[in-house]
Amino acid sequence: MTKVTEIQSFLDEQHIDAAFITTPDNVFYISGFDSEPHERLLGVMVFKDKEPFVICPLMEVPDVLASGWAFDIVGHEDTEDAWDVVLDAVKKRGALPTSIAIEKSHLTVERLERMQTIFQNTTFANLDNQLNQMRVIKDEDELANLRIAAQFADKAIEIGCREIAEGKTELEILMAIEFELKKQGIQKMSFDTMVLSGPKTASPHGTPGDRKIQKGDFILFDLGVVYNGYCSDITRTVAFGEPSDEHRKIYETVKLAEQSAIELVRPGVKAMDLDQAARGVITDAGYGQYFTHRLGHGLGISVHEFPSITGTNEFVLEEGMVFTIEPGIYHPEVTGVRIEDDVVVTKNGVEVLTKFPKELQIIQA
Amino acid sequence: MTKVTEIQSFLDEQHIDAAFITTPDNVFYISGFDSEPHERLLGVMVFKDKEPFVICPLMEVPDVLASGWAFDIVGHEDTEDAWDVVLDAVKKRGALPTSIAIEKSHLTVERLERMQTIFQNTTFANLDNQLNQMRVIKDEDELANLRIAAQFADKAIEIGCREIAEGKTELEILMAIEFELKKQGIQKMSFDTMVLSGPKTASPHGTPGDRKIQKGDFILFDLGVVYNGYCSDITRTVAFGEPSDEHRKIYETVKLAEQSAIELVRPGVKAMDLDQAARGVITDAGYGQYFTHRLGHGLGISVHEFPSITGTNEFVLEEGMVFTIEPGIYHPEVTGVRIEDDVVVTKNGVEVLTKFPKELQIIQA
Repeated sequence: MTKVTEIQSFLDEQHIDAAFITTPDNVFYISGFDSEPHERLLGVMVFKDKEPFVICPLMEVPDVLASGWAFDIVGHEDTEDAWDVVLDAVKKRGALPTSIAIEKSHLTVERLERMQTIFQNTTFANLDNQLNQMRVIKDEDELANLRIAAQFADKAIEIGCREIAEGKTELEILMAIEFELKKQGIQKMSFDTMVLSGPKTASPHGTPGDRKIQKGDFILFDLGVVYNGYCSDITRTVAFGEPSDEHRKIYETVKLAEQSAIELVRPGVKAMDLDQAARGVITDAGYGQYFTHRLGHGLGISVHEFPSITGTNEFVLEEGMVFTIEPGIYHPEVTGVRIEDDVVVTKNGVEVLTKFPKELQIIQA
Repeated sequence: MTKVTEIQSFLDEQHIDAAFITTPDNVFYISGFDSEPHERLLGVMVFKDKEPFVICPLMEVPDVLASGWAFDIVGHEDTEDAWDVVLDAVKKRGALPTSIAIEKSHLTVERLERMQTIFQNTTFANLDNQLNQMRVIKDEDELANLRIAAQFADKAIEIGCREIAEGKTELEILMAIEFELKKQGIQKMSFDTMVLSGPKTASPHGTPGDRKIQKGDFILFDLGVVYNGYCSDITRTVAFGEPSDEHRKIYETVKLAEQSAIELVRPGVKAMDLDQAARGVITDAGYGQYFTHRLGHGLGISVHEFPSITGTNEFVLEEGMVFTIEPGIYHPEVTGVRIEDDVVVTKNGVEVLTKFPKELQIIQA
């Protein structure tokens, strides 16, 4: 079943005539066309029982074609009102819809008011849950892209480790990683790359800067790439020179916490079970107060999407879900350590997409 | 008058009880607090005649305080419904508002529906025009930030020119620019930096890549930085080695076009006059078909904001407006050239914020 026919089945079940999708991520998900139209109108109109169309700026029509969208494409020029163009395209397909499902968590009030003006006898339903439910389960094509995105994330950590040297700054290492990835064809990181060293590792949201790497530092990399529209997100923490005993203890605790959560992953388990397992290990080791965030988050077209892996989320895992597992200990007087992998729920267990080793890597100083 | 009192005057004139502002750019504009809250609720509630408040995630309360916001701050925890917290804060100030102005071009349908649930007898007006009108005129503090952002943009072009050498790639030069800016304290570029060389300059939206600089290339830099929340945006095109006669002719045409538009800038002139002046110069030189975009765009907290400088926009310029002037010629068989400055409309004319020289710079090959 294609994404379009899945939407059509939903419309049929719910007795809704049409769905109009305008969030760039969801337009990409449904149509395969990846674009950031800014204030211009880009959308996919899917009907219960008529041919769908993409509405886009005229200059993007060739790109929609090239993206593999197999149905109608309606272009609008900057000099015309894009909503009139939508109305025309709908009218060409017969009677106006009496109900349209929209993305209420994304569509602006202004756009809804425009839709209410052109579709005067139409009611508006919510498409958000349906789209979330679809996107949370990844199909084989999506998993293939996520696997490659994860391979590039592994590669990025390798590059980062190679670049570590006494006196180099966090920013120098960061730029070397991104430069090498760009040369390998990666156009976009999935978020601002993080390279933190020494005491800065103790901040879960620190900013890389001019700090120079010193012997005895832990160095934390948190990064990801976008591959064919799909994101990866990995964290590794490595040692520069021999670590102290407490550094080692913190590292091994996080590693065990992460492993404990990964081992639980399979269909039927709740998101909260994973968070609680990892948090239990960290609390038992006496570092509970220093694990200050949720265990993980869904991953796909967005770097943060459903489901949220928290200690209270009763969401039940199913085959095909993809998310991060990323426990951390942020000890202000010792060091920070975070280890993060991207995992897929498989039929009987788990597939870990990111494969960079988790045995503590000690870079010779 | 502060931004808060300006909103209050508007509410008073329009007989609206309150305004609720949730777009991060506008929250920053009104409150001074710069944050991207993602799905969490961040907003400023301004009343006609009561004390305003910022609503934000609890952990950000100290940051709002540090940003200089002088009024009430209401924090909400992840475990509570942020809208209940808003309702409580409003109730504490007395009767519920009978009307609230919202940003219809940004607020989602979901959020409006939540507001309609908690404010059941309230009507919702549009705040968009008022905010646009306020933001389009920059005050002295804003101009001071824009001037410094422009100085860093000049510096970035200088760095880029220094980095040019035979065989270096576009990406190598790009990374060197961003690295040096980061060392100087710039955390964020205002958009993806563009370094294009040779035939790639003929694409107005090209992507920097592995192409190696060659003698005879034109090299186009388009970049900007964010300084204290304000953006710059500059383009310069320079020559590597002696340019051909036609390269020179195209360069001098764009330079003259840009100068012609800048010379017209003063209060009372229409946006379209500027576009037409620059376009006239390029058309007269026989390159009209190769200038394929508008002349410029407003600049401030956003890198693209009001006003749009197009050939049909009758918008009248006023003192304190800031925008780009950026004509270009994109000749697929010869070269592309674009020259872009950031300008302020002054009482009697224009102040050009970006100052990197516009005489054709020839880097010795």
